[in-house]
Amino acid sequence: MSYEIKGLNEECGVFGVFGAENASQLTYFGLHSLQHRGQEGAGIVSSDGDRLHQHRDRGLLAKVFADEKDLLRLTGDSAIGHVRYGTSGNNSINNIQPFLFRFHDGDVALAHNGNLTNAVTLKRDLEDRGAVFQSNSDTEILIHLIRQKQNCTFIEALKQSLNEVKGGFAFLLLRKDSLIAALDPNGFRPLSIGQLDNGAYVVASETCALDTVGAKFVRDVQPGELIVINKNGMKIDRYTDKTQLSICSMEYIYFARPDSIIHGVTVHNARKRMGKLLAKEQPADADMVIGVPNSSLSAASGYAEELGLPYEMGLIKNQYIARTFIQPTQELRERGVKMKLSAVRGVVEGKRVVVVDDSIVRGTTSKQLVKLLREAGAKEVHMRISSPPFKFPCFYGIDISTRSELMAANHTVEEMSDLIGADSLGFLSIPSLIKAISVKGGADYPNGGLTVAYFDGKYPTPLYDYEEAYLTSLKSQQEREEK
Amino acid sequence: MSYEIKGLNEECGVFGVFGAENASQLTYFGLHSLQHRGQEGAGIVSSDGDRLHQHRDRGLLAKVFADEKDLLRLTGDSAIGHVRYGTSGNNSINNIQPFLFRFHDGDVALAHNGNLTNAVTLKRDLEDRGAVFQSNSDTEILIHLIRQKQNCTFIEALKQSLNEVKGGFAFLLLRKDSLIAALDPNGFRPLSIGQLDNGAYVVASETCALDTVGAKFVRDVQPGELIVINKNGMKIDRYTDKTQLSICSMEYIYFARPDSIIHGVTVHNARKRMGKLLAKEQPADADMVIGVPNSSLSAASGYAEELGLPYEMGLIKNQYIARTFIQPTQELRERGVKMKLSAVRGVVEGKRVVVVDDSIVRGTTSKQLVKLLREAGAKEVHMRISSPPFKFPCFYGIDISTRSELMAANHTVEEMSDLIGADSLGFLSIPSLIKAISVKGGADYPNGGLTVAYFDGKYPTPLYDYEEAYLTSLKSQQEREEK
Amino acid sequence: MSYEIKGLNEECGVFGVFGAENASQLTYFGLHSLQHRGQEGAGIVSSDGDRLHQHRDRGLLAKVFADEKDLLRLTGDSAIGHVRYGTSGNNSINNIQPFLFRFHDGDVALAHNGNLTNAVTLKRDLEDRGAVFQSNSDTEILIHLIRQKQNCTFIEALKQSLNEVKGGFAFLLLRKDSLIAALDPNGFRPLSIGQLDNGAYVVASETCALDTVGAKFVRDVQPGELIVINKNGMKIDRYTDKTQLSICSMEYIYFARPDSIIHGVTVHNARKRMGKLLAKEQPADADMVIGVPNSSLSAASGYAEELGLPYEMGLIKNQYIARTFIQPTQELRERGVKMKLSAVRGVVEGKRVVVVDDSIVRGTTSKQLVKLLREAGAKEVHMRISSPPFKFPCFYGIDISTRSELMAANHTVEEMSDLIGADSLGFLSIPSLIKAISVKGGADYPNGGLTVAYFDGKYPTPLYDYEEAYLTSLKSQQEREEK
Amino acid sequence: MSYEIKGLNEECGVFGVFGAENASQLTYFGLHSLQHRGQEGAGIVSSDGDRLHQHRDRGLLAKVFADEKDLLRLTGDSAIGHVRYGTSGNNSINNIQPFLFRFHDGDVALAHNGNLTNAVTLKRDLEDRGAVFQSNSDTEILIHLIRQKQNCTFIEALKQSLNEVKGGFAFLLLRKDSLIAALDPNGFRPLSIGQLDNGAYVVASETCALDTVGAKFVRDVQPGELIVINKNGMKIDRYTDKTQLSICSMEYIYFARPDSIIHGVTVHNARKRMGKLLAKEQPADADMVIGVPNSSLSAASGYAEELGLPYEMGLIKNQYIARTFIQPTQELRERGVKMKLSAVRGVVEGKRVVVVDDSIVRGTTSKQLVKLLREAGAKEVHMRISSPPFKFPCFYGIDISTRSELMAANHTVEEMSDLIGADSLGFLSIPSLIKAISVKGGADYPNGGLTVAYFDGKYPTPLYDYEEAYLTSLKSQQEREEK
Repeated sequence: MSYEIKGLNEECGVFGVFGAENASQLTYFGLHSLQHRGQEGAGIVSSDGDRLHQHRDRGLLAKVFADEKDLLRLTGDSAIGHVRYGTSGNNSINNIQPFLFRFHDGDVALAHNGNLTNAVTLKRDLEDRGAVFQSNSDTEILIHLIRQKQNCTFIEALKQSLNEVKGGFAFLLLRKDSLIAALDPNGFRPLSIGQLDNGAYVVASETCALDTVGAKFVRDVQPGELIVINKNGMKIDRYTDKTQLSICSMEYIYFARPDSIIHGVTVHNARKRMGKLLAKEQPADADMVIGVPNSSLSAASGYAEELGLPYEMGLIKNQYIARTFIQPTQELRERGVKMKLSAVRGVVEGKRVVVVDDSIVRGTTSKQLVKLLREAGAKEVHMRISSPPFKFPCFYGIDISTRSELMAANHTVEEMSDLIGADSLGFLSIPSLIKAISVKGGADYPNGGLTVAYFDGKYPTPLYDYEEAYLTSLKSQQEREEK
Repeated sequence: MSYEIKGLNEECGVFGVFGAENASQLTYFGLHSLQHRGQEGAGIVSSDGDRLHQHRDRGLLAKVFADEKDLLRLTGDSAIGHVRYGTSGNNSINNIQPFLFRFHDGDVALAHNGNLTNAVTLKRDLEDRGAVFQSNSDTEILIHLIRQKQNCTFIEALKQSLNEVKGGFAFLLLRKDSLIAALDPNGFRPLSIGQLDNGAYVVASETCALDTVGAKFVRDVQPGELIVINKNGMKIDRYTDKTQLSICSMEYIYFARPDSIIHGVTVHNARKRMGKLLAKEQPADADMVIGVPNSSLSAASGYAEELGLPYEMGLIKNQYIARTFIQPTQELRERGVKMKLSAVRGVVEGKRVVVVDDSIVRGTTSKQLVKLLREAGAKEVHMRISSPPFKFPCFYGIDISTRSELMAANHTVEEMSDLIGADSLGFLSIPSLIKAISVKGGADYPNGGLTVAYFDGKYPTPLYDYEEAYLTSLKSQQEREEK
Repeated sequence: MSYEIKGLNEECGVFGVFGAENASQLTYFGLHSLQHRGQEGAGIVSSDGDRLHQHRDRGLLAKVFADEKDLLRLTGDSAIGHVRYGTSGNNSINNIQPFLFRFHDGDVALAHNGNLTNAVTLKRDLEDRGAVFQSNSDTEILIHLIRQKQNCTFIEALKQSLNEVKGGFAFLLLRKDSLIAALDPNGFRPLSIGQLDNGAYVVASETCALDTVGAKFVRDVQPGELIVINKNGMKIDRYTDKTQLSICSMEYIYFARPDSIIHGVTVHNARKRMGKLLAKEQPADADMVIGVPNSSLSAASGYAEELGLPYEMGLIKNQYIARTFIQPTQELRERGVKMKLSAVRGVVEGKRVVVVDDSIVRGTTSKQLVKLLREAGAKEVHMRISSPPFKFPCFYGIDISTRSELMAANHTVEEMSDLIGADSLGFLSIPSLIKAISVKGGADYPNGGLTVAYFDGKYPTPLYDYEEAYLTSLKSQQEREEK
Repeated sequence: MSYEIKGLNEECGVFGVFGAENASQLTYFGLHSLQHRGQEGAGIVSSDGDRLHQHRDRGLLAKVFADEKDLLRLTGDSAIGHVRYGTSGNNSINNIQPFLFRFHDGDVALAHNGNLTNAVTLKRDLEDRGAVFQSNSDTEILIHLIRQKQNCTFIEALKQSLNEVKGGFAFLLLRKDSLIAALDPNGFRPLSIGQLDNGAYVVASETCALDTVGAKFVRDVQPGELIVINKNGMKIDRYTDKTQLSICSMEYIYFARPDSIIHGVTVHNARKRMGKLLAKEQPADADMVIGVPNSSLSAASGYAEELGLPYEMGLIKNQYIARTFIQPTQELRERGVKMKLSAVRGVVEGKRVVVVDDSIVRGTTSKQLVKLLREAGAKEVHMRISSPPFKFPCFYGIDISTRSELMAANHTVEEMSDLIGADSLGFLSIPSLIKAISVKGGADYPNGGLTVAYFDGKYPTPLYDYEEAYLTSLKSQQEREEK
């Protein structure tokens, strides 16, 4: 949420349904509750049992389907949908998912949440064998891999292909008569299955989408699984046994909606525990605790509760999305920030304030926050972050791939505190983060089944195409720290 | 805020600035922070010292000014702007403000927040004297009244006209060389003056807009005042001495942004006190307290604090605005509700929950809320309302003019509790409401300077065109209660 | 037609129908065939017998009604419509007609083709009496005049008002139960009545619109007439007897569609006769005759026929309207011209060409034409104009009000020929123009019932607000000629 | 032109430029003059020497580039563009050209005018080898064929691929450093090369586009040629020697603009000769000759000249494109026709009229024409067609592929005359058609270098995927004729 003021963005949300009337409408509802996972584009592909139908465009879901006819045209009992975050250079409509491919032997649609770490290599190999790509997206690679397989069924070709792609992925595929879901061997991205009253199956990036469409939670898709849903029901299959749960901890820290339940853990509750543990590790002598809306409110309330401090509403987020085009002068640019977030003078004036945020990426937002609170009269501003310092990029689906942008990769906590202008700054420790989340079955895996590489640089997989860049940045980090 | 799920809507927000470069851009920023006061249309008129320039359209501010050129065209150092809520039949672009009138002796623009109670009578009289109206809006009446005055200055004509219109109004007028603000004799609607660092004056419906543009608060406009701002500075004048502060209590209860300060009272703090007094009057035996986002979170935290109960995030509001066009079946319609609000299963499951809301209008939202919480596993749902039962319509600027729609006008509290399906229901008393708000200078006036007519039916002014309708509805209310 | 390459534009076309199902659709068809009279905006107002419904917007008719729902919303059995040419500064949607005024005693809609010569004076007087105008249009004046009349019927008030406005006008008014048409005392603008098979009456600026909707021609509206159509049929009334037919000769020369019949004269035939008479007066020794598409093709064929020369297609007009925004360099600007008109090399190469055009306004188009033909290989280019030199502005509905723009007002024919680069140049004489047109009943009036003031400066009426400007320009003309 | 009233549509126009500043603007101008070849979609791809940039969308060129920024974004000194006609089911933006493909070894863009006759077979083969298509277009096949070639240069791969595709094609390809043009072995579609004053080369479907951008004609691309333009200039190469000029005669009859010169023949002149020969073969006893605007005016003037009859403007085409959505009743549908074409009553009333049209496809337009003229008072209507009866479909780029739609395939001339309601009907003979056109170098080839298969069914190439369908339809034709 509050994506405008973060330098960090989840790449996608996916939703699928099989066997329900008005499948595309249900998908619209489901995607709406996943909108926080991507605001740059949206699309739906439905199947009427014979042909697949597609509509996709740039912008928020409500804009993409502003004309009701575009949704009603997507007839049939099954559908998949996608909401997408995209970097500026790539916002061609060609890159908006689900992709729809029409073959003489049947249509296939494809939606993807994640990031492939060997995409460059695979794409080059495929092109050298004659493949023609029409998007910049990693996602298109999978369909080319599948089509290159000869003399085997679609499912066999898909399984082989899933063993060739590396990195983080939650794939949904739609064919005229089936819906298929697949998760990477580490389960980096969340993917849950639900069921409607009429028995129809639903698959979604987060359980909040299941709730929205009235589906009961059935199970999380597990690493390495391949789920095939057709008129005979749901079949749980695997394309590999070499799995190790390493779900992205940023889903709990920042991305997911508070009401979602991922691997048995309600996101809000995890955040509240982070806040409590943060209070124990990094207490502050203050008059009140406030959170940065909306993603840090849970942690802030936990922090306040643990220390017995009042939990106040000291910052207000404007619920309307502002166009930020108009910034001829520095003065107007600063006003732009205030269009998104406001400090409540009547609350913070003359007070020593702890402000809890979920993370520091580039540090610019934190600096503005402190300034905003001081201008509103706060006597002291103590910043507390409900996650460890963010030092290493993500290669599994979060759009940060250079370390140079990460404030914590380049500064000590003391330096950061000075740079953002806070009276003090404190972070949660990695062990406390793991403890706060503690996913179902996590005990069987390193780091309790979580990826914490953003904080310690220990990635659970080889990095393939990114390996070299990573090592370079790591080395420069070590050099800096040795100084 | 959360206007989609309420049956109650403020009609407008106004913003004006005089003497600042990029006046229209500042107005854009200011209007953005007033967007919660009206989402149906927006407009800005600027003055370049000679001519006035206008742009207005239907929809949210960001849509109206989606093309930056439309804003850059509005050159000059002064501007007024308006955001508008409008009922469906009236959403012609003709009704979107500010209105701009071009006369051979100079342009005049006009923006209005409020509702005139003698509009029908005035309009008919003016038409009989040859006036030609082009909008359905009350607002246009003022300019006709002004132009009918002969042999007097514009300000004199304006003062006479302000004595002829009745009801609630905060007017902003822009001429090529001045910005004028006027408030009705009861000060029903809020209007505040601020000042930028360069000395330029700013006028806005709420102080949150002053903060957004970086203006320091100067003073609230007082009932009966006429403020004239030009190159010589600000002149505080009056058009009447027959005033009595009766500011709309719904501004504190529901409409205004929590960070706004109205007549010396921070809205968040007033709401928190309402929650505390509600807890004293209507305690509940429960495991936790949750608030309905966003407008009831302050009151809920006060309620929780008073009773020492945990304050939890049990309801999530989707920050993205959903199109609600798609509702072929009852099942899909219910999904529609869930697109806006979600219960956090991991928080409320198995718990006795107090849910605090700010008001009950038609009761439909409350009923859905209770259902949502029960479906998420809440064991008990106790609803507490941080204002008294809403029984009587508003005639001063809120879009409810028939009592038949108001649940509390037609049912006892017990009946209401049953109808919405809650385990218990409790309202704040009128004296506690007044105590919680206690505006600056309010002690000199009935009800502490507040209008509480929505709760007790005692309107602080004659109702003019609405008198008959009101008496009829009152009578039917009395008959019902006698039964 | 070919409006893009002319500096001269008719201001409007009007269409009305009473007593036909789908009245707004018929009006859409009718306006489509009048689109050549105005491309800047379009609108329709319909009456369902109780209320009037309006839709209008900037742009071509097809764009204004791009969404079919906007037309279907305009229910009822009667309607009026308007297409409008507007100068750049005035293209606010407020100025697009028909205007719709809602009064407590009934709605009135108004559409106007023409130009009032005392508009400034009337508007100032009305404003001084309290009137509030919301458009820049002359047209709005009529409704204010009507509403100022006390103690009389609408028709009486209208008649009085029509005697107060001066200049050229063809007005259509729609009320809930009647359609009213009125023409100025000189009949400057054309207006015809037709009848559908079901008896419904149709009124239109040109008969081509009657043909398009399948209406049979009934009669031309005569100067000073007031036509009232309601469920009792059509009543022909007058508001004045002081009339003198002086129809604008430019309608025949340039504006009207060739298939329209105005005062008994088919426009194409009049043009062909102009061409024949031009050939007699201004013959040329050449290999072929070509016309400038589309408005000069008739005259060119007459010219060729008279001299026995081949009539060839030497110029092609691109039927698609080009955006002309892209002109970073002079070279690209010249390409822009070529996007509209092309010379046919295979026809003109090596030939002595007579090119017939209908008029020279600023001369820029003529100059480009000659250049185009020479570049395509024409050996000689003789330009012949099928009307007299255009020296004096029009004040009755054509958008040229300063003489300084008119090439013929500032140069002799020899100078003009040199300036445009032609080998020779010749114009039609005024007597031949009158002879070529010879309208029905024209013999009873000066100049055969035509206005030829554009050529001789003898206006058939006082010029009111324009008098002074005209005398000034006339004087400078005489001074120039005396030199 | 007048595409709305024909059942026959050219599929495309292409334009390319290499080595000129503002290449994309020049392409915009060029495409504008080719707009008559396709109105359903348009696009441009430019090269800045490093990367290719694309913009494309549905609709007319002016709409596609309504926002100037979309054109300015297409930087660089070379560009190709495309205008497209598309059948309803295929109007996805994916099908709009130029296609842009990004490979790790460089971007390639592709634009195509024509139709491949072995597309189905090729596509199926390619898919079976793993190819993934994203459009329904034949055009995409070429890039897949190219990329399947191993161990050869791009030009070599292109040459091989051009030998594999069959049918009619004029291809433009853009790479970062070169512009490539290729024409099919029969030269079914026109393609011309021009040169700007600065030496930059231009390639276009018709010479009218060369004129528009100010380029001098250099030469027609010949069958089997491959033209490579880069910074070293233009190189004329061949991919095959098995060529035989068979240019589509419909280009001269109907599609091309009158001012275009194709294989040495000015289209207008060819049409005029067709009219003259038609007059000799099919004279008529009549008072005048009129043409159907715009494509038949040349032939009509030739017909009139030959017989010494007056050539009149008896039909007017509305230059504005009408939306035709609104046709609730049969009556309104007929009005729809009249929105496009009007008869000039003042010209045809009481007269014996010869109306010359260029072709009869389904016959519906002809029937309406006759009706229109009779309603306008024509005493006799003699229809003359300046081409032979259209009996056989085109497989090389015109969108008619079933014979059942062709009136002349199913009726004798007498039957046709009765069906359309004419007093007489006559067609041009095939030998006269060939004589009228007589292209440069045509004497060396069958039918003077023209394809006249639409009239005699003798196709100059095998039909591949269409063979079977063609034989079936031929057989049913023969059976019908034997009866």
